[in-house]
Amino acid sequence: MNSLNQRSVVGVTMGDPAGIGPEIVVKALANKRIFDIAKPLVIGNAEILQKMIAQLGLELRVHPVQRAEEAQFQYGVVDVIEATPVTSDLIKMGEIQKLGGQAAFDCIKKSVDLGLAKEIDVIATSPINKEAIKEAGIHFIGHTEIYQELTGAEYALTMFAVRNLRVFFLTRHLSLRQACKQVTTSNVLESLIQIKIELSKLGFDNPKIAVASLNPHAGDGGLFGDEDQREVSPAIAEANRLNINAVGPIPADSVFHLGLQNKFDAILSLYHDQGHIATKTLDFERTISVTLGLPFIRTSVDHGTAFDIAGKGIASCVSMEEAVILAAKYSIMQKGEGILNSHS
Amino acid sequence: MNSLNQRSVVGVTMGDPAGIGPEIVVKALANKRIFDIAKPLVIGNAEILQKMIAQLGLELRVHPVQRAEEAQFQYGVVDVIEATPVTSDLIKMGEIQKLGGQAAFDCIKKSVDLGLAKEIDVIATSPINKEAIKEAGIHFIGHTEIYQELTGAEYALTMFAVRNLRVFFLTRHLSLRQACKQVTTSNVLESLIQIKIELSKLGFDNPKIAVASLNPHAGDGGLFGDEDQREVSPAIAEANRLNINAVGPIPADSVFHLGLQNKFDAILSLYHDQGHIATKTLDFERTISVTLGLPFIRTSVDHGTAFDIAGKGIASCVSMEEAVILAAKYSIMQKGEGILNSHS
Repeated sequence: MNSLNQRSVVGVTMGDPAGIGPEIVVKALANKRIFDIAKPLVIGNAEILQKMIAQLGLELRVHPVQRAEEAQFQYGVVDVIEATPVTSDLIKMGEIQKLGGQAAFDCIKKSVDLGLAKEIDVIATSPINKEAIKEAGIHFIGHTEIYQELTGAEYALTMFAVRNLRVFFLTRHLSLRQACKQVTTSNVLESLIQIKIELSKLGFDNPKIAVASLNPHAGDGGLFGDEDQREVSPAIAEANRLNINAVGPIPADSVFHLGLQNKFDAILSLYHDQGHIATKTLDFERTISVTLGLPFIRTSVDHGTAFDIAGKGIASCVSMEEAVILAAKYSIMQKGEGILNSHS
Repeated sequence: MNSLNQRSVVGVTMGDPAGIGPEIVVKALANKRIFDIAKPLVIGNAEILQKMIAQLGLELRVHPVQRAEEAQFQYGVVDVIEATPVTSDLIKMGEIQKLGGQAAFDCIKKSVDLGLAKEIDVIATSPINKEAIKEAGIHFIGHTEIYQELTGAEYALTMFAVRNLRVFFLTRHLSLRQACKQVTTSNVLESLIQIKIELSKLGFDNPKIAVASLNPHAGDGGLFGDEDQREVSPAIAEANRLNINAVGPIPADSVFHLGLQNKFDAILSLYHDQGHIATKTLDFERTISVTLGLPFIRTSVDHGTAFDIAGKGIASCVSMEEAVILAAKYSIMQKGEGILNSHS
């Protein structure tokens, strides 16, 4: 249990107001447990949040602030920093629209400003819609790329966290065929270097990183593909020479099981679905995406705006709660106040 | 709960005697729960099993039989049908050797004879070692292929079962690059046809079969690979025309989560690790391999001979227990005595 002093200020973006973002944010903040570890500060629009609270019949009071230091951070109060002029009357729920995208982007921009100014320690983000963002004239591949661009970070590293697993990805949004081609010694090595740097920032001392194999049984001695021997093994050997505690390649159908048994601090998966299948099959709602490499840590729900159920009051806030709690935990770890298991 | 009449006769092969097979078999039969659903008949060598029981200090009595009808099928008794002349003094524990492979193969052959003669209803197999089998002069790719060859089956279909998931594989022991190339309309369609046939034999009425996508987000409209649109979707459409209740392609990081929520009767994964990661990350020891398409159902532990711990008395029999129980359950389903949830 952390003392109240240790609580981190978690900026929580409202996301696209036409989606389930405002709903899951206020529902999450209706959970008292959040306030044990976090000082949540919603980055959005007070009117939209107030309306959602009324619609859901929650006993929460909206408290608009101009700066983080004005916030109360008390259970029962939703501190909101005004980030966008877009109000509820301008929005059609459940639809892709320019103002929805604009509002979502306004919140992201404000969160970056607050993060860079160190008014907030860490950010937990609600979903945005790619098409709506595009209609607002903002051209990015995704949420993570926006944060990377706006902060000028050299790279943004996505890590999935669920239970005791921390899963990184060599590649993400590529076809499986293309992803196979990206399994090269230099790519794997670069990834291991970045992972070590980022885990060290979180307080891990010489983190143990397992690399999943590309092929079944890690290729079974070359019988089913040679990338594991030809590309992955040399990267691990070179990483070891650089004092990175990397092991593998470990057959992908064992490595996550071993991870659950606490054998490693992190696992590098070699393609999108390898890590996604493991984490999301284990616990879909509690798989949280963490972005490292930015000037601040960002966590994110890993679901979309869910326009089909937006405004109906039936969205689950489990992922949002987890994202806020995890943001606070990692922020504490980053400040060197956490206790970590190390496998070094 | 099944009445004693409903219990199926499960032939349990001893596996390679230099590995953990004999140990996990007798340990599993020391679990009374097995006898609630199954009539286990070990196919192996009485002397080897007797010695293992003594070594482990189990209160079990070996009862050698010549035919299944002589068996007692009572808790406390290990009914053994003599399948191999290889005794313990001829075997070096923990080593790849000709006689170990020969004994393992003898047990498989005997199980096929018993299965074809309908002396046993179903088979649960202990692990064998590929190299030892080869030293015995027997040339097969694997355990499943031996059963297919010896029974003259047209095909052998591997299904992984864990919790409520039933997972099939379009391909298994291929490199990931090769596996991508095998994702063709005709291969997917053929697989769906076989799955429907085999699930129907198990008593499923118009089983609902989900097909996992090859690419992340099922290719996201062609952005990350076109195989899902180009090859998988037409196969599903054609399967639907043939009255197969197939759906998909469903993004691989959602399909197993949905399966756990009981949305389908089975899932077709498109490559080895796709289905393996999902099932084995969920529960490594309770993921059981089921071979369909043979004249009898065969279940199998999905681990190896574990030569490194053979003879030490420390092997876990959880997988073996599950394999025997699942064999009995599927046998009951096949006889039309089970009750199935259908999603048709």
